[in-house]
Amino acid sequence: MSIITLLTDFGIEDEYVGIMKGVILSINPSAVIVDITHNISPQDIMDAAYRIKASYKYFPKKTVHMVVVDPGVGSARPIIAVQSQGCYLLAPDNGILTPLLDDGDIDNIVYVENPEYFLDSVSQTFHGRDIFAPVAAHISKGIGIMELGQTADIKDLVRISVAKPFVSDNGELSGIIASIDRFGNLITNIDYILFKKFRDTFCCGKEISFIIGSKKITGFSKNYNSVKSGMPLAITGSRGYLEIAVNCGSAKKIFNVSKDDPVMIIGVDHNIGHQM
Amino acid sequence: MSIITLLTDFGIEDEYVGIMKGVILSINPSAVIVDITHNISPQDIMDAAYRIKASYKYFPKKTVHMVVVDPGVGSARPIIAVQSQGCYLLAPDNGILTPLLDDGDIDNIVYVENPEYFLDSVSQTFHGRDIFAPVAAHISKGIGIMELGQTADIKDLVRISVAKPFVSDNGELSGIIASIDRFGNLITNIDYILFKKFRDTFCCGKEISFIIGSKKITGFSKNYNSVKSGMPLAITGSRGYLEIAVNCGSAKKIFNVSKDDPVMIIGVDHNIGHQM
Amino acid sequence: MSIITLLTDFGIEDEYVGIMKGVILSINPSAVIVDITHNISPQDIMDAAYRIKASYKYFPKKTVHMVVVDPGVGSARPIIAVQSQGCYLLAPDNGILTPLLDDGDIDNIVYVENPEYFLDSVSQTFHGRDIFAPVAAHISKGIGIMELGQTADIKDLVRISVAKPFVSDNGELSGIIASIDRFGNLITNIDYILFKKFRDTFCCGKEISFIIGSKKITGFSKNYNSVKSGMPLAITGSRGYLEIAVNCGSAKKIFNVSKDDPVMIIGVDHNIGHQM
Repeated sequence: MSIITLLTDFGIEDEYVGIMKGVILSINPSAVIVDITHNISPQDIMDAAYRIKASYKYFPKKTVHMVVVDPGVGSARPIIAVQSQGCYLLAPDNGILTPLLDDGDIDNIVYVENPEYFLDSVSQTFHGRDIFAPVAAHISKGIGIMELGQTADIKDLVRISVAKPFVSDNGELSGIIASIDRFGNLITNIDYILFKKFRDTFCCGKEISFIIGSKKITGFSKNYNSVKSGMPLAITGSRGYLEIAVNCGSAKKIFNVSKDDPVMIIGVDHNIGHQM
Repeated sequence: MSIITLLTDFGIEDEYVGIMKGVILSINPSAVIVDITHNISPQDIMDAAYRIKASYKYFPKKTVHMVVVDPGVGSARPIIAVQSQGCYLLAPDNGILTPLLDDGDIDNIVYVENPEYFLDSVSQTFHGRDIFAPVAAHISKGIGIMELGQTADIKDLVRISVAKPFVSDNGELSGIIASIDRFGNLITNIDYILFKKFRDTFCCGKEISFIIGSKKITGFSKNYNSVKSGMPLAITGSRGYLEIAVNCGSAKKIFNVSKDDPVMIIGVDHNIGHQM
Repeated sequence: MSIITLLTDFGIEDEYVGIMKGVILSINPSAVIVDITHNISPQDIMDAAYRIKASYKYFPKKTVHMVVVDPGVGSARPIIAVQSQGCYLLAPDNGILTPLLDDGDIDNIVYVENPEYFLDSVSQTFHGRDIFAPVAAHISKGIGIMELGQTADIKDLVRISVAKPFVSDNGELSGIIASIDRFGNLITNIDYILFKKFRDTFCCGKEISFIIGSKKITGFSKNYNSVKSGMPLAITGSRGYLEIAVNCGSAKKIFNVSKDDPVMIIGVDHNIGHQM
């Protein structure tokens, strides 16, 4: 078995994704191709970065992940191949793998330079078809990534600035909305482990509140049905990060917020009442 | 061969569907996964119910159908596995299989309870990934559904109220718009066999008319091209149910109607003219 | 290996595409099915024609391409199977293969008439399921297309009028916007070879300008990053046709144009300045 996943901003309205699959199957007829999503907003590297990090670990070892959100296509920006935790990642060197690289556990990184593994003719506008797809197919057939080009030093790679949650001076845990999903769930950049530590350290015996925009949610829920239909809640989402949701509704609509907007978490003393 | 189909309200904008496929392929690398649709409106159990009923019989025996529109995820609602007509269906016990169960021909129903077939860690928000996908993969590998948990009594399962067409006192066949498709075709809940019986019984020698909103279509067509481009018609749709369509156009737009709106069929005597 | 591609206007909101895949896999369990796109605007034969021409050559020999944009479904319009350059195409005889047929290199064309290869019951509204899918599956299993029906004479097939670029009397190369992709790139019907010939013949030593609506782009770019972010450019797109794009932006938005709008290319003498 050889699995290749695709995560792009190409959309599904055009023939682009189908063509990449044709190229892959022409080289490796037994490749199994899985779409993660093609609906990343055009050029939204950060969003793709969050999504590949949330996805890759659910695939079998040796899976090749193509991550192609590539506004620099055709320019001098390199393409990199990364071997990490038994899988392979192919991406432009534009920071899209930053959260993954930050996690460490990288076995190998090379620049993808060897035209032997590209299509014969390489355009300046569609490296997904001409470089990424054929290279992914060749990796899935078993060529080592060392065949692709020179080793890259992780310190030389482009990084994007990924917002990190922090505890402010007045004891609030401050994060942002990293993603908003189809259901309107607001997925924060605050992972549950950090939240738990914050609660144990700063909020011992206090009631937890979540502040999003001008609204507040009090208490932490176990599942969507912990509150009535239409009511908001805070919960651990499926990525393992805190999520603001509405039972049978859309938190995006109710809170009227956007990606990158702040989320704050505070502990409120029962005895003196809420301070907001 | 082992086919697993997916019918969900997860959309394709997020990484959720891709992750479920990764989980399936990690357990059964030779599974063939087919998307039926992921664009069910969030939490629209009824719509999913119609669509799985319209789809499952076109797949080979032993296909496993995952039907995950699951507003109760994380609550105490059970998950059920159904064996029927040689295929398997996995769904929350929320009524989503009602039209299928109503058809009868059920061989076996069990509650999905055995964590041996789940992912090691089960979240409260994404059972599609943590329970449905791994269980579907295991069924596709050949485990019997009796391994999954206790037998369920069909009488104990949750049902949704599916609107049924009826003949009113004044001899009209009364139904609703069950689905509206991408082309704007209005798919009713009136199957052709019932319609034919109604026509033979109540409308012998009369002209058939279809009333949708404030508009009327007279006569029954064989295909879309039976009328001029842009003109409305009534026809037997591909589900075997009566459909209101517009040749090369959208009935949804022209009739300005929504799901669940009524459709009425009447026989009009030629000799005394139309009475509307 | 046997690959079947699907290019339709069925959308992905409904169960239609999933059902066709079920039919295919019921007949050929080892078929690999690839979606090119299902988001052709309903009944937009011309758009589908451009897209299948841009796609099919990237697939392995023996691939079967189903092209189903079929407003005449259920009418007397024939279905054709075409063998060309080692692959197979199945489409309604409505002109959708015109650009492909114009390229020549056709080995064989037959009318698809033999009900032995259809589903047992053929509806009047969904030949994608009842005829195209089962016939594609049978071809992918190795039946010769001569088994499907009588040979068709290419001269008898329906053609659509595909706009061709031309050089006007005053020496302008005149084309149209053939497609607009998800990124808002305007893909013209002017292929690079024609453009190059025009430039060498008519524009020797002059500066090239592209006129779209009321706006003008001067110069021809190698890649999107040849201009600043947000700036427009003209480039050779991935289909091998001239494309009007905006670096990290949408040309569709900036130029406010639609499919079929004109694009003109002129050579401007440096010495006498721009004449617009």
